[in-house]
Amino acid sequence: MSEPETEAHDSGPAEAPERGIYDEDGVISPDFLARVGAAIADGDTAALKQGVASLHQSEIGDLLEALQPEQRRALVRLMGAEFDFTALTEVDEAIRLDIVESLPNEQIAEAVQQLDSDDAVYILEDLDPEDQEEILAQLPFTERVRLRRSLGYPEETAGRRMQTEFVAVPPFWTVGQTIDYMREDRNLPDSFSQIFVIDPTFRLVGAVDLDRILRTQRSVKIEDIMHETRHAIPATMDQEEAARIFEQYDLLSAAVVDENDRLVGVLTIDDVVDVITQEAEEDLLRMGGVGDEELSDSVLAAGRSRVPWLMVNLITAFLAASVISLFDATIEQVVALAVLMPIVAGMGGNAGSQTMTVTVRALATGDLGAHNAWRIIRREIGVGLLNGVVFATLIGLIAGTWFDSVTIGGIIAAAMIINMFVAALAGILIPLLLNRLGIDPAVASSVFLTTITDVVGFFAFLGLATWWFGLL
Amino acid sequence: MSEPETEAHDSGPAEAPERGIYDEDGVISPDFLARVGAAIADGDTAALKQGVASLHQSEIGDLLEALQPEQRRALVRLMGAEFDFTALTEVDEAIRLDIVESLPNEQIAEAVQQLDSDDAVYILEDLDPEDQEEILAQLPFTERVRLRRSLGYPEETAGRRMQTEFVAVPPFWTVGQTIDYMREDRNLPDSFSQIFVIDPTFRLVGAVDLDRILRTQRSVKIEDIMHETRHAIPATMDQEEAARIFEQYDLLSAAVVDENDRLVGVLTIDDVVDVITQEAEEDLLRMGGVGDEELSDSVLAAGRSRVPWLMVNLITAFLAASVISLFDATIEQVVALAVLMPIVAGMGGNAGSQTMTVTVRALATGDLGAHNAWRIIRREIGVGLLNGVVFATLIGLIAGTWFDSVTIGGIIAAAMIINMFVAALAGILIPLLLNRLGIDPAVASSVFLTTITDVVGFFAFLGLATWWFGLL
Repeated sequence: MSEPETEAHDSGPAEAPERGIYDEDGVISPDFLARVGAAIADGDTAALKQGVASLHQSEIGDLLEALQPEQRRALVRLMGAEFDFTALTEVDEAIRLDIVESLPNEQIAEAVQQLDSDDAVYILEDLDPEDQEEILAQLPFTERVRLRRSLGYPEETAGRRMQTEFVAVPPFWTVGQTIDYMREDRNLPDSFSQIFVIDPTFRLVGAVDLDRILRTQRSVKIEDIMHETRHAIPATMDQEEAARIFEQYDLLSAAVVDENDRLVGVLTIDDVVDVITQEAEEDLLRMGGVGDEELSDSVLAAGRSRVPWLMVNLITAFLAASVISLFDATIEQVVALAVLMPIVAGMGGNAGSQTMTVTVRALATGDLGAHNAWRIIRREIGVGLLNGVVFATLIGLIAGTWFDSVTIGGIIAAAMIINMFVAALAGILIPLLLNRLGIDPAVASSVFLTTITDVVGFFAFLGLATWWFGLL
Repeated sequence: MSEPETEAHDSGPAEAPERGIYDEDGVISPDFLARVGAAIADGDTAALKQGVASLHQSEIGDLLEALQPEQRRALVRLMGAEFDFTALTEVDEAIRLDIVESLPNEQIAEAVQQLDSDDAVYILEDLDPEDQEEILAQLPFTERVRLRRSLGYPEETAGRRMQTEFVAVPPFWTVGQTIDYMREDRNLPDSFSQIFVIDPTFRLVGAVDLDRILRTQRSVKIEDIMHETRHAIPATMDQEEAARIFEQYDLLSAAVVDENDRLVGVLTIDDVVDVITQEAEEDLLRMGGVGDEELSDSVLAAGRSRVPWLMVNLITAFLAASVISLFDATIEQVVALAVLMPIVAGMGGNAGSQTMTVTVRALATGDLGAHNAWRIIRREIGVGLLNGVVFATLIGLIAGTWFDSVTIGGIIAAAMIINMFVAALAGILIPLLLNRLGIDPAVASSVFLTTITDVVGFFAFLGLATWWFGLL
């Protein structure tokens, strides 16, 4: 802890050079990878355990992702009971499945018992139903019931992400009784930041933060210091919606309740942070026209997942081409039009996607609604016209000078203003409309947008030119 | 809490119809907005206090964003001391500044004293230096020193986001002493999940989670239950890097230390969640060619912020146009080429941006590094060739049939394969190169990419055609 450098504190284990598992870019270091690879090749269990067992689960996860498939399986096999299965919650789904399927179900059942229920569910949920059943059957009764309940909720709900271990006390207990109970009970969760207050039927009546308990006298009753749990989360709520509640109300943990308001688990902020980053990643990938692709996917899998988007764009492209073909006689006469037409379409597409990006984001954060939609639409039209006029003038001057023709300069300028205006309108109305129809605007907006800006761009430019040259 | 519906629990205050501030889309409801607007217009302070004072800070923030500028200022003025200033940490910077600048510095100084130091810094940091000084001068000594220290750290660092209120005890205290201290001290932070252990010079020696204290006997010494603080965060560390550490090691809070390893504050997960969503938003906006724009920006401000991106695209567009102009003689002969050429360029651009999206994301998460770069490059080339051949065949067949010419079908197919291959290469190499050069690949990659796919697309298609028709 003596270096003043930024890097000195941030990754504990990385400080000592003999354990430096990350390089300066924060990526697993090739040196460390080579050492682990050598230990795996030699079957050197002792070296592996020494180098890997003390790492944090997320560090082991990064290591697994960096290894070759056969090395991963060998590492887990060689480390045996000392392999930390929570590391599997930190890797891509394909890698997790590959490792889990290489292990006997008995070993998985053994390992799953050591995990918090949320981690266990995370590992079990992607397995095929027969394996899942076989593993569950080997667990102790309570464990099995808890995991079955979590797995019974739909995917990506709070019920799937919750931890079923929690501390719950009756409202009439005193602070002193509660503390004594926690000192004696060996069945507490690994860590917690809140205790829940329940009635005899397990209905949730409130919660108390730990700091509140610590600063209260022993004789005070729990019901006098508990707060109402305004943000109890139904187990069937979508995980993204639950994350938004955590974010809005700055929660560290929240009670998860079943349809009868009975406490069934607790959702914690660390899982929510994972949900937030995961959803942000999904949005980004979707806007880039990539589906649920992972870095570990093969050429074939990645190639296939990108086909739908390219196919949609293919149709769009031919639509735009057919607009151009309407004017082939004009192009034959004035080839400059063919040279300049991609500029009109392209600039419109870019301006429109700026508007669309802002709109999609504002919809996702709930900043855009009925109360301000008109204001934002007016603003975007204003921006479209403003930048339309600015860039129309500029492009008109350049194109006019290039082809030494005032006519061509004038035509492209007029087409630019039309297309930038339409682009702004489309950039805001398409996401609003898709959102209204219940379709994720991040996925579908940009296809419709470029179709419109291409078609309008080509049509306005070539149409104006045809009309004008027809007059001559 | 009786409805089984998803909406029933999520927003507490929204449950009772008379206080429903959000509509079903999670956006401030027009009804609520109208009621608040009427109360502001009538100067009805009582109604305002009743309707607004009990809301959560983030709800007041959403309300402020939905109001007109003059309404916002009036609301804050009318509510006086009952206005919760933490709500200002939940609104766009422009709105925050507008409100704060409408208030006398004395009132701000008064309000700032009630806030946690991180919220106070958040509000003060954007003010101009004279106002900041005037406000700080009116604060009590300790408060002033603490805020000055935070404000002394660079923007967007852990030091700016930390809370300077924390609980710290010496290692030789027992659990009992510590609990007694917390029961008596009235100067504790509003909420905390960890206490820190320090030596007499304020150097950090460890930390204890509250649940650990609660389950330990009173006689046990703190040093026996504390854990090493491997993830202490230097105050000068960039907030994004600090967020990544929280995310990787599932932290709820972390000690912030100065250059001498002395404890100066604590960074908490709720601030980190804000940083994560903010950074995700920035990435998304940047990839869409929009800068640090906010929804409250005016037409002129938004228009201006989008000009640089459009200007860069203008240059790109003219570059592509000049490539086309090289082949104007060929286009004059075969107008079909003008009709089809946007297809080649556009499909290349889309395929390339799929690759680029995956690459930019993998770089941001640290999943892509020296150890796997070659594997990913090979995979992307494979995907590019695979989809290149598939779509080349398809497009060749369609174009050949459309223009009833095997030659045109063959030429466009060949050009497609070339452009999809180049697009894949560019899609991965450009972000890798920019990253190596220390430039954010999210911002700059797509301009370079479309330049390359346009230029190569037009050049390959028109060049092949010119060569072929020249042979005839």
